[in-house]
Amino acid sequence: MTKSFYPPVRTLMGPGPSDVSPRVLGALARPTIGHLDPLFVDLMDDVKRLLQYVFQTDNALTIPISAPGSAGMEAAFVNLVSPGDTVIVCQNGVFGGRMKENVERCGATAVMVQDRWGDPVDPNKVSEAFKAHPEANLLAFVHAETSTGVRSDAQTLSQIAKQHGALVIADTVTALTGIDLQVDNWGIDVAYSGTQKCLSCVPGIAPITFSPAAVARIESRATKVQSWFLDMQLVMGYWGGNSKRAYHHTAPVNAMYALHEALLMVEEEGLEQAFARHQRHHNSLVAGLEAMGLAMAVAPEYRLPQLNSVLIPEGVDDAQVRKQLLEAFNLEIGAGLGELAGKQWRIGLMGYACNDVNVTRCLTALGAVLGR
Amino acid sequence: MTKSFYPPVRTLMGPGPSDVSPRVLGALARPTIGHLDPLFVDLMDDVKRLLQYVFQTDNALTIPISAPGSAGMEAAFVNLVSPGDTVIVCQNGVFGGRMKENVERCGATAVMVQDRWGDPVDPNKVSEAFKAHPEANLLAFVHAETSTGVRSDAQTLSQIAKQHGALVIADTVTALTGIDLQVDNWGIDVAYSGTQKCLSCVPGIAPITFSPAAVARIESRATKVQSWFLDMQLVMGYWGGNSKRAYHHTAPVNAMYALHEALLMVEEEGLEQAFARHQRHHNSLVAGLEAMGLAMAVAPEYRLPQLNSVLIPEGVDDAQVRKQLLEAFNLEIGAGLGELAGKQWRIGLMGYACNDVNVTRCLTALGAVLGR
Repeated sequence: MTKSFYPPVRTLMGPGPSDVSPRVLGALARPTIGHLDPLFVDLMDDVKRLLQYVFQTDNALTIPISAPGSAGMEAAFVNLVSPGDTVIVCQNGVFGGRMKENVERCGATAVMVQDRWGDPVDPNKVSEAFKAHPEANLLAFVHAETSTGVRSDAQTLSQIAKQHGALVIADTVTALTGIDLQVDNWGIDVAYSGTQKCLSCVPGIAPITFSPAAVARIESRATKVQSWFLDMQLVMGYWGGNSKRAYHHTAPVNAMYALHEALLMVEEEGLEQAFARHQRHHNSLVAGLEAMGLAMAVAPEYRLPQLNSVLIPEGVDDAQVRKQLLEAFNLEIGAGLGELAGKQWRIGLMGYACNDVNVTRCLTALGAVLGR
Repeated sequence: MTKSFYPPVRTLMGPGPSDVSPRVLGALARPTIGHLDPLFVDLMDDVKRLLQYVFQTDNALTIPISAPGSAGMEAAFVNLVSPGDTVIVCQNGVFGGRMKENVERCGATAVMVQDRWGDPVDPNKVSEAFKAHPEANLLAFVHAETSTGVRSDAQTLSQIAKQHGALVIADTVTALTGIDLQVDNWGIDVAYSGTQKCLSCVPGIAPITFSPAAVARIESRATKVQSWFLDMQLVMGYWGGNSKRAYHHTAPVNAMYALHEALLMVEEEGLEQAFARHQRHHNSLVAGLEAMGLAMAVAPEYRLPQLNSVLIPEGVDDAQVRKQLLEAFNLEIGAGLGELAGKQWRIGLMGYACNDVNVTRCLTALGAVLGR
């Protein structure tokens, strides 16, 4: 007979999930109510408003998708892209490649703008791509590349797209509440994220926001969205502003309790304060790592404070170090992804996990395991 | 500033979510660990094995999809259906219509077999449809129609499909662990479900199983699956049996703790005992409702014990009754869906909520509100 599962208490300093606050876990475990219960409908309204706050947007269509960030990415593409479209996709890590997959599965053409993994997206290349492909009606890029720890200039990239009459999809999975992200001011049309990064909520939900221009494009589609589950025309009927909500799917009720609690913790702290906290502890971590003789993988001006890519020193066994950190210190840091596997570690300082105790814990543990 | 959300303790006797056991809520709130943590990988193996037990299958590809039951339905169709295919879809309630939507969004043709909402699928009509459409390579039906409370004969329907060389998709969202469901013995190729019905887990996850024939069809597809998130060729790499798992998406870690606990509660009770318990309390509920002068909507031989459709008496205000039940008794029962709205109530006796206390609670509350 199977036994109950009691996980150890880890410190999660990888690329996500990050440590979840006991407040959020407590909210998660509150009694389940119906997904059409009037009290749950009120909670949904609260969640929408709080998501507008963290995305810095007035977009009416700002909701949590009932599935992980990967489904948030898919929701962005299947709704905005129609067969035959041309989309400019920037790739400077793993997730740009996933965007390409999404574009192609929508029957559209992806024009790739490639940059080295570890560099930001080059705005000049994006301008050139628009000039070479005036038919492109959409630009897609990753604001904070989870695979490399690099920040790209979301504002400049969005402005270029606007100059060419294109809409903008930004992957903000790792960005949201860790670095500044101004959806409305910067002209981002669709931004999607995940709950398990700087929101420090349990994984499984994808916050997403659509600008009025994005909604207009969805409403004027000539073909149906290929995904029934992610079709925003249907989802809008469920999350919409009117009091009569059409049943679409059963919302993950308890996960919404948790997201609500995680979002109000951000609201209590304030976005500016959260950004400053990420920057402050990032500075300490980098100072400590460099004092230990380790080198950062990303140039200082493009580093994400919430995700720190570190070069693995010559002769050090990547997997062995991570295993020791996990077993001896209950500390999880991230491996390299894709072509960076075995070459870099990714140390997260995300949301609730971004604090001075964790910085010290990580430096102490790494120092002990590496003998530095 | 937003306040924390404290839900009331409801008794959930609608069409789902059903009441979640404190054991499952406790598991849900355990500390989050990484989705690639070796201990989490072990948990995934346990979950797969327990899902095989409840589906009564040896299918290797038996996993929880990281999204609600609606996404489970979509996963079944986008993987098995290719553009140009012909699919026979049985509709005797809301969810057959949703299957049609899925088929058409895959670029295929849905041949509809219609039955009255409240009747089971008629096997003779299905045979006729196969004779009229020998090109059909797939049959889809709902085993336990959540919108009507009707059980169809999954075994007979599956055998008809097999006689015509077609594969079978069965919607078992409300069926799983409430009534007998023998995936292997009956020849069902894909069955999907949800966690929030008779499993009495929190909503948000879709258990699904694929037969070797279904996997072979997926592997021989000429076109890519249109959904990246639900592409089983990719998901298999993540949930697959080998020790090296490819990163696909971040699993909803805490929801998996809860599903694991809910499944082992079923294992502890035993499937046969769970079926018998549903039947026993269903009999009591029906006896009580009829003693009150209420009439069941479905003929006895097709009734689902876990979902009881009751005709709303002449002159009774549907919404007002449900509101009073919710406000005065913290009791949720379900409204009619689609064309049955305002005509029927749906009273769930699902999983953990299926017990004698709830039967009495429901009869007492309904009697008080209706004055019977």
